[in-house]
Amino acid sequence: MGSHRKDLLIQVGNFVEQLYQMGVRQVILSPGSRVAPLTLAFVRHPHIQTRTVSDERSAAFIALGIAQQTKTPVVIACTSGTAALNYAPAVAEAFYQRIPLIVLTADRPTEWIDQWDGQTIRQQNIYGNHIKRSYQMPVDLGHDEAKWFRKRIGAEALQMALDFPQGPVQINWPLREPFYPEIDETFDFSNKNIGAVEILSSEPYLDDETWEETLLPILNNHKKILIVAGQGQYQSSLAESLEGLPFPVVSDIISNYGSVETAVIHQDVFLSPSEIEILQPDVLITFGMSVISKNLKLFLRSNPPKEHWHIQEAGEVADTFQSLTKVIRSTEDAFFDQFSGYELAHSTTYLEEWKEKDDAVKTNKIDFFELLSFSEFEVVNHLLRELPENSVLHLANSMSVRYANFIGLERNDVAVYANRGTSGIDGSTSTAIGHAISNPECVHFLLTGDLAFFYDRNAFWNNYLPSNLKVLLLNNHGGVIFSMIEGPTKQPELSEYFETEQRTSAKFLAEEFNCNHWELNSREEFYYTFDSFIQTSDKLSILEVKTDKVISKNTFKAFKKEGVYKV
Amino acid sequence: MGSHRKDLLIQVGNFVEQLYQMGVRQVILSPGSRVAPLTLAFVRHPHIQTRTVSDERSAAFIALGIAQQTKTPVVIACTSGTAALNYAPAVAEAFYQRIPLIVLTADRPTEWIDQWDGQTIRQQNIYGNHIKRSYQMPVDLGHDEAKWFRKRIGAEALQMALDFPQGPVQINWPLREPFYPEIDETFDFSNKNIGAVEILSSEPYLDDETWEETLLPILNNHKKILIVAGQGQYQSSLAESLEGLPFPVVSDIISNYGSVETAVIHQDVFLSPSEIEILQPDVLITFGMSVISKNLKLFLRSNPPKEHWHIQEAGEVADTFQSLTKVIRSTEDAFFDQFSGYELAHSTTYLEEWKEKDDAVKTNKIDFFELLSFSEFEVVNHLLRELPENSVLHLANSMSVRYANFIGLERNDVAVYANRGTSGIDGSTSTAIGHAISNPECVHFLLTGDLAFFYDRNAFWNNYLPSNLKVLLLNNHGGVIFSMIEGPTKQPELSEYFETEQRTSAKFLAEEFNCNHWELNSREEFYYTFDSFIQTSDKLSILEVKTDKVISKNTFKAFKKEGVYKV
Repeated sequence: MGSHRKDLLIQVGNFVEQLYQMGVRQVILSPGSRVAPLTLAFVRHPHIQTRTVSDERSAAFIALGIAQQTKTPVVIACTSGTAALNYAPAVAEAFYQRIPLIVLTADRPTEWIDQWDGQTIRQQNIYGNHIKRSYQMPVDLGHDEAKWFRKRIGAEALQMALDFPQGPVQINWPLREPFYPEIDETFDFSNKNIGAVEILSSEPYLDDETWEETLLPILNNHKKILIVAGQGQYQSSLAESLEGLPFPVVSDIISNYGSVETAVIHQDVFLSPSEIEILQPDVLITFGMSVISKNLKLFLRSNPPKEHWHIQEAGEVADTFQSLTKVIRSTEDAFFDQFSGYELAHSTTYLEEWKEKDDAVKTNKIDFFELLSFSEFEVVNHLLRELPENSVLHLANSMSVRYANFIGLERNDVAVYANRGTSGIDGSTSTAIGHAISNPECVHFLLTGDLAFFYDRNAFWNNYLPSNLKVLLLNNHGGVIFSMIEGPTKQPELSEYFETEQRTSAKFLAEEFNCNHWELNSREEFYYTFDSFIQTSDKLSILEVKTDKVISKNTFKAFKKEGVYKV
Repeated sequence: MGSHRKDLLIQVGNFVEQLYQMGVRQVILSPGSRVAPLTLAFVRHPHIQTRTVSDERSAAFIALGIAQQTKTPVVIACTSGTAALNYAPAVAEAFYQRIPLIVLTADRPTEWIDQWDGQTIRQQNIYGNHIKRSYQMPVDLGHDEAKWFRKRIGAEALQMALDFPQGPVQINWPLREPFYPEIDETFDFSNKNIGAVEILSSEPYLDDETWEETLLPILNNHKKILIVAGQGQYQSSLAESLEGLPFPVVSDIISNYGSVETAVIHQDVFLSPSEIEILQPDVLITFGMSVISKNLKLFLRSNPPKEHWHIQEAGEVADTFQSLTKVIRSTEDAFFDQFSGYELAHSTTYLEEWKEKDDAVKTNKIDFFELLSFSEFEVVNHLLRELPENSVLHLANSMSVRYANFIGLERNDVAVYANRGTSGIDGSTSTAIGHAISNPECVHFLLTGDLAFFYDRNAFWNNYLPSNLKVLLLNNHGGVIFSMIEGPTKQPELSEYFETEQRTSAKFLAEEFNCNHWELNSREEFYYTFDSFIQTSDKLSILEVKTDKVISKNTFKAFKKEGVYKV
């Protein structure tokens, strides 16, 4: 017994040091007994920051936010049982958004599974198809080969999580009792030969021959070349390459390239599937992940390019526009750097056509809201205009991200994030909290609606609420998106079963968790209060705006119409 | 397009009527667009009761509560994406607690999976090993064989969910647009030949030969025969058979047989693994699911019977006590009915030994608390003593259920439930709400701790809060269980990383959701307030008791000690 515990504690200590050496700096723990040796080793490691969050659903989304913000792999660790299942929504989001989460699920030894002995489920490979790989630690760590296996699992899991496309991995660790250290026992993090594997990266790029023989002939044969940026973070070197190209770069707000000179950002406003054939591209070049603009997708699907190339260094590629012809294995940076070095024939009118339509919306939107009644769309417009320098903007699903995308952002000093991997409403607040706590020098804004906000209300149930997070909550007492789309509005069940109307207010939550809170419903109050809201504070701030649902809906419709009509 | 929609709506209507004919009466919906045709068909069915709950985690636990209370299969239906993953904790609980949930996950057509097109994940077989079976509906329902397949899936899924052991099944239904009915389109629920399959049940029981040749010789050869009831609901006919047997029936509080004359209910207090060899059984006969009493498990594992028989009509059987020798395929009722018909040699002293020890605790506990300071254990004792006739008691994990089991219950007019399938803290309140809303004629009590209560706080986020639910919340600001077990108490990280101490109060939640709420911390206040708390009210009631953690811990320890010492 004693020797089992000693072996285990040495291996746990080595494992934690191995993760540290391979890049782990942040861990989100959730309380539990089975996970105790891992908890203790992480907490006692001198260079790893640990926090504990009781609701595993929120814990995993917080970790996802930290991983995304710090660009490092983040560990989440929980006890046995359904704890691991509560991680699942964030694990799926990390999978589709390519975020390296190391999911550490403590387990009972396999022989105890299904023995009606409490808090035990079938944890091996529990995340099914939404995990890059699942590993099972050996339960007995006395044998030398078992120790080697333990080392390999640590190193392989880290490599797998960090390999492009990055993503979550699971390590299920069955732990046999006793596993609590005695008072005088410490973890030794100075052991050598713990199995940390160094990864030296290379950068995939196309050779000149491929460019000259395969790509350039096509590019030179076609004049209408369109670049579409999917979701991704801003890279200045890539932006520089894009600036040099004489082609429109369509960028959603979550694509973060709205600041590029040739950027088009109002595509969701002015595009419609069939009307504007002149905008049909010959060659479509895409990079990044998903696109929000539904009208862009519909437009490209009914006006398909002759060629669609997607740039991505590895992994599966989606055929979002139903016209994929080439998958180009290169980093985005290398591809566009090479691309911008070639002198290409091009149609200046094609770029002008896109820019003209985009500029028209830009002009129209300036004083669009002034003449109308106060709406949540106006609130979003104001927030986007007033974002401080170097701030971070988080957009919840489902109307928040759409509103913001319709308005757009032309700046590169604001980083925009949204959980568009799975587009769930289940973890937006937690994700924003993860970002804010790991990036305290920036102000973070979360634009959210009442369904997303209350769904993830346990985001507040921890001891780390960041004062640099400001939540702008559009509370229309239900999923207003359902009255924006055609199908549900025709149904008598709209209010009860789609919008799920409920008289909610964030004031109780704000009081419970000691946050600043303002609640208002008029234009005058809003502009007056907004200045206080964006001031630095020592508490998390919530500005709750209650607007008329019908006005909001009509304003949104009018905006879409104006954009098209005035061109 | 039109004909696709018409086909779809006819099939959806038929499917809903098929489920109705096969026993479905209750559906918990969660809002979403993809699930709309199913939502509308359930809502418009004249004899199915629908409710909508936004947080799918809570929705699924509410459905689990309804299914358990009504003993009928309950449908949960959600939209595509991570909604389905939020069902997972309740699905696992249903799997291990054998509760028939029909999990209906709306999906996009398969060709759209992984195409970066929003709210789409890999939903087929998403519950992995925690579902009885997963079905995939055909996306196009025009062909006759596709219609036959649709009918078969409905019937097979229902049969599978209801087959012993009952459990959850998933039907993933990819739905192609358009799927919203036009204003003049209605669902027709009067169609014939919709595929409802009638199930005629038989009752498995052992024949006389097996009894006489296999079981009776063993029973007649051994005098110490011990019956242990695992978790299950009270059946009066089974209780009657048990009454007739001259053997001790060890019953946890969640086993619901504490009213039987030969019942032993304080096993967790007076048993210890090695001390009491006289209680070692020759033959152990068990039925039902899991056992809470840790000391009983440890005792039987170190004092194993020569034979351990488990009675269960079908399915896997756990070897909880590490001594399983016979699996007896029979209903519990039939087995004990036959059993009680035989005249068996037996040791009266064996029964007396068990009863004597049990009675000693019973006597000791009567005025045990009076001499000590006010503790949460005393609160539990009082609640159990004062439960009204025909009430329902729900016990949250983890200390609540343990406290209650230590005190025990000797009545058969109170039904006791706890989510001991997986022993999670994630859905206790939602489960209790499901019970209470589907059984309005009874008063329901939920005994819970602060971690379980706040974890599942979205249980309150719906429009159906039952006024017949009374929540007794033991708020000690953290997981006090960690200071009850030896390992964590030795660690300096106890308070921050195990108990996860936080200054919570339910008063904000109570105000937000318009519940009665009392908060108190003294014996005087408690006894004074308790009477108001158990009164009938038109609102859900929460009695929040804040006690000293150290006193509670010491009281618990003393109780266990008294139980052993005074015997």
